[in-house]
Amino acid sequence: MIISIIGLGLIGGSFALDLKKNYPDWVIQGFDVSAENLQYALIKRIIEKEVSVKQAIKSSDIIFLAAPVDQIILMLPEILGKNTNQIIVDFGSTKKHIADAVKTSPFRRNYIAAHPMAGTEFSGPQAADVNLFEGKFCIICDKELSHNPYLDTVEAIFRKLKIGVEYLSSSDHDHALAYLSHLSHVSSFALANSIFSDKSFLDDNIKLSGGGLLSTIRLANSNATMWIPILLQNSENVIHALDEYIDNLCKIRTLIQHNDTLNLGEFIHHANYAYRKYNLRNPKIITNEN
Amino acid sequence: MIISIIGLGLIGGSFALDLKKNYPDWVIQGFDVSAENLQYALIKRIIEKEVSVKQAIKSSDIIFLAAPVDQIILMLPEILGKNTNQIIVDFGSTKKHIADAVKTSPFRRNYIAAHPMAGTEFSGPQAADVNLFEGKFCIICDKELSHNPYLDTVEAIFRKLKIGVEYLSSSDHDHALAYLSHLSHVSSFALANSIFSDKSFLDDNIKLSGGGLLSTIRLANSNATMWIPILLQNSENVIHALDEYIDNLCKIRTLIQHNDTLNLGEFIHHANYAYRKYNLRNPKIITNEN
Repeated sequence: MIISIIGLGLIGGSFALDLKKNYPDWVIQGFDVSAENLQYALIKRIIEKEVSVKQAIKSSDIIFLAAPVDQIILMLPEILGKNTNQIIVDFGSTKKHIADAVKTSPFRRNYIAAHPMAGTEFSGPQAADVNLFEGKFCIICDKELSHNPYLDTVEAIFRKLKIGVEYLSSSDHDHALAYLSHLSHVSSFALANSIFSDKSFLDDNIKLSGGGLLSTIRLANSNATMWIPILLQNSENVIHALDEYIDNLCKIRTLIQHNDTLNLGEFIHHANYAYRKYNLRNPKIITNEN
Repeated sequence: MIISIIGLGLIGGSFALDLKKNYPDWVIQGFDVSAENLQYALIKRIIEKEVSVKQAIKSSDIIFLAAPVDQIILMLPEILGKNTNQIIVDFGSTKKHIADAVKTSPFRRNYIAAHPMAGTEFSGPQAADVNLFEGKFCIICDKELSHNPYLDTVEAIFRKLKIGVEYLSSSDHDHALAYLSHLSHVSSFALANSIFSDKSFLDDNIKLSGGGLLSTIRLANSNATMWIPILLQNSENVIHALDEYIDNLCKIRTLIQHNDTLNLGEFIHHANYAYRKYNLRNPKIITNEN
């Protein structure tokens, strides 16, 4: 198989490494708009060959689009169907607008609208990690619009890489992701800006901060090139989630201001319960971040 | 030396373990208002002996107060000076109100207003960890009001336990901690409540969430008994920090709503810069949380 990966950042780079590990005989080639990223990916053997988008279309069995979503939404209609039987998979963190861009394409069946739920706050091929995806989930959206053998082929790859698959409509995906991912990033950006705004006072004391602070602003290191288009493409859902968050912050502000021990306790207990209800963590594990 | 620790939760319990490890000949005794915590601490040999507060006053060389700050502020004036030459140390996460409670005491010199900057989102003696403090910092407030040999004795203990010491006024401590710790806890409580509010829709999809979400709501598991009094005692500073945070969230909301790519990029770049400026993380380290 000949695989092309367009976008050799954290996601594209990691996926390239994982593919090569699991399919050593496959040809893994790639493209990135950044010459620097491309060069790095070649030197570090993340990809074995550099290709242009044109060459990728000509030669590949599968093209994975792992670029920022504003680039994906432009590329996808241009690429899809140019090479019959070629499979196109996108890895964008938003789905509705991207999927809508090719909704009426006669080659919609060749396209798998995917989103691997994996990542760190780091970016670029330097952050690529062969173990990034193992044990994680990938969402496939509007599954019924992707046909076999294309869908089967991609799902088989995910199975081999030990990536679980979940299905959602692209609308439900964007709605859920606003809460499960995008809001957390917005909260971290705003928190970092609030805590580290021009405060020379804090400069000397920042070394005192512990793992708690770090955990809430870890995502503040996330890449703007990737995140601006995500937040703008999913703006309606993100704003909805953000409004709910701001409401809750105003609520707790009022409780603190009014010395309302009872309702503040309820607010915190509800947060404790929410945290535990979803069984997100084994409560016996002391986090390494502290 | 005979040491009493009042409050055998995460902080008190961990400190007890660390003291015993470094000073195996010392007697480490303790008290907790929760009979269950006390029992656990005895069974797990976190302390070797249970004492009442009265007995602690009678017998100890040093008493460490590691209870919630609303209990500390009541206990401290009752304990300080009851036994001349006895050292009292508090570990409260707020300082101004607690320190003010004994400002005019003739035994102020026997009291060390401390705050070890260590912790996890877990609580109770079950969470106690002998390694919690090593390599961390402890803030000592209003240092000039604590005299020797009392201050020297406590600082020697911190040195032995490999805890660094930093000095701040109690006002500066509370101001800084609002940003370095309290705001992050408020953000996590509110975020958990926003994300996991009554949304059956999310129930099926929460397993898709990754380390990013987890990091921003990790602190949502923090204990209400400890955090209600912290937020209320430091309400003025917390509200000030919270207002700044809400402002920033409203700012990014507006930028997203107006599709303002330029200023959204600036907002995110500023957050990236703020994150890196304080050198909080080695950028090559891929976090275990992903």
